[in-house]
Amino acid sequence: MCLHGTGETVRSRTEGVATGPASTRPSDARSWPGGFGRVVDLSHTISPDMPSWDEVKPARETLSPPAPDGEFGFYLQRWSLTEHTGTHLDAPGHVIGGGRLVPDIAPEELVVPAVVLDIRERAAQDPDTTVEVDDVLAFEREHGPVPEGAAVLMCSGWSAKWAEGDTAVRGLDEDGARHFPGFSPQVCEFLVDRRSVAGFGVDTLSSDPGNSTDFPAHEAIGRADRWGLEALTGLDRLPPVGATLTVGVLPGLDASGGPSRVLALW
Amino acid sequence: MCLHGTGETVRSRTEGVATGPASTRPSDARSWPGGFGRVVDLSHTISPDMPSWDEVKPARETLSPPAPDGEFGFYLQRWSLTEHTGTHLDAPGHVIGGGRLVPDIAPEELVVPAVVLDIRERAAQDPDTTVEVDDVLAFEREHGPVPEGAAVLMCSGWSAKWAEGDTAVRGLDEDGARHFPGFSPQVCEFLVDRRSVAGFGVDTLSSDPGNSTDFPAHEAIGRADRWGLEALTGLDRLPPVGATLTVGVLPGLDASGGPSRVLALW
Repeated sequence: MCLHGTGETVRSRTEGVATGPASTRPSDARSWPGGFGRVVDLSHTISPDMPSWDEVKPARETLSPPAPDGEFGFYLQRWSLTEHTGTHLDAPGHVIGGGRLVPDIAPEELVVPAVVLDIRERAAQDPDTTVEVDDVLAFEREHGPVPEGAAVLMCSGWSAKWAEGDTAVRGLDEDGARHFPGFSPQVCEFLVDRRSVAGFGVDTLSSDPGNSTDFPAHEAIGRADRWGLEALTGLDRLPPVGATLTVGVLPGLDASGGPSRVLALW
Repeated sequence: MCLHGTGETVRSRTEGVATGPASTRPSDARSWPGGFGRVVDLSHTISPDMPSWDEVKPARETLSPPAPDGEFGFYLQRWSLTEHTGTHLDAPGHVIGGGRLVPDIAPEELVVPAVVLDIRERAAQDPDTTVEVDDVLAFEREHGPVPEGAAVLMCSGWSAKWAEGDTAVRGLDEDGARHFPGFSPQVCEFLVDRRSVAGFGVDTLSSDPGNSTDFPAHEAIGRADRWGLEALTGLDRLPPVGATLTVGVLPGLDASGGPSRVLALW
């Protein structure tokens, strides 16, 4: 929804001041210098009908409508959403009583090297598959050690199902049970204890696989005082190693987590 | 709110697997390798009694309470907030009918060089002061040209007033009128037309000064198809040039703007 006719309607208050380079349109992103060759958005757009773990959906209302095209006026919406809406971060205190909450997470923990474990081929065959320690060891034989302080991201291909809606994303079977890939608790503990990772991420609705009933990956990540990102998208566009993740988690008071704008840079 | 006793309570499912470096605690941020020497948080914590432009405040409710200390269970809150709550981004379509909304902003526009114009000394004397073209030219004589695609940030010192509450942040006079610094429309147009900036940022409640009644800086920024960040904090911790800004704006459907986790890296 680009603004048409901008060039004609901008008032020329600056005529006569020092000259400089001509204006570049920001919508031509390729010409926009940011210091990084690539920036990839890893967050889904938040909408009232977006896929979700349960039937608690975000809601919105228009507080003031948009002005007519090209006219000046204040438009805004109000949202009602939980801290676990859309692409979001789980703080340790989401699942462990007394654990750290979003405001307790240091900014340095939100800018970290990204490691992408690609299990798409296996997940296409078996939606109940889990990331295991062997996946990390196989990854390291090809790409070198998982760097200290990294975020380890599971790329299962599941984010492509977001366009299909809840049934596909939840992987519901005939009995209404969920089926999608996730982390095993063993690999979470391995990555914390032996690789000192900063956090975890999945492109599904949960760090645990959909068929889990006791959520041991959540518990392992929370007890280790680490964060977990859920419902990421675009992981197939990242290199296996070499990108930097910036986790723009909403900093709510006492927040157990928060909707997050996650960007990958490299 | 750190989790105590983590080391003792983590289950040892990974005993016997390959060894690696010992775990580092993420809360010791100085030892956390992120590829950047410094990461500074530029966002205020969102809370129900935080300072705001008007009396529309964010609200929260607990959907599920925290588990007892050290126990496992799911804690979460739900929030109700407008797209212009706390540290937030105004999209062009917030003020110009038909202008771009948050989902229309390319990821590349959200990772940009930061330029900090420090007007603290003047703002302490005159709360109605504005950033003018001469401020940019004086800055450039000392620090070199504003880089193309930059975010130009006004550091007025106003974020220190957040702890004092609404009256101080709004700069209310005896008649209830607002007084705080902002951008002049002329400098906004100059920075777009002659320096091709990506966006603007202020550490006050509005891109316009508080005593404005027709919001010409908002209009200049919106008509130029640029974004504006409001209610930033921590700008006094940034270098004048050399930092990279990552703008983690909440990606709401049709959003006129969004609460944003803004991080500065250098």
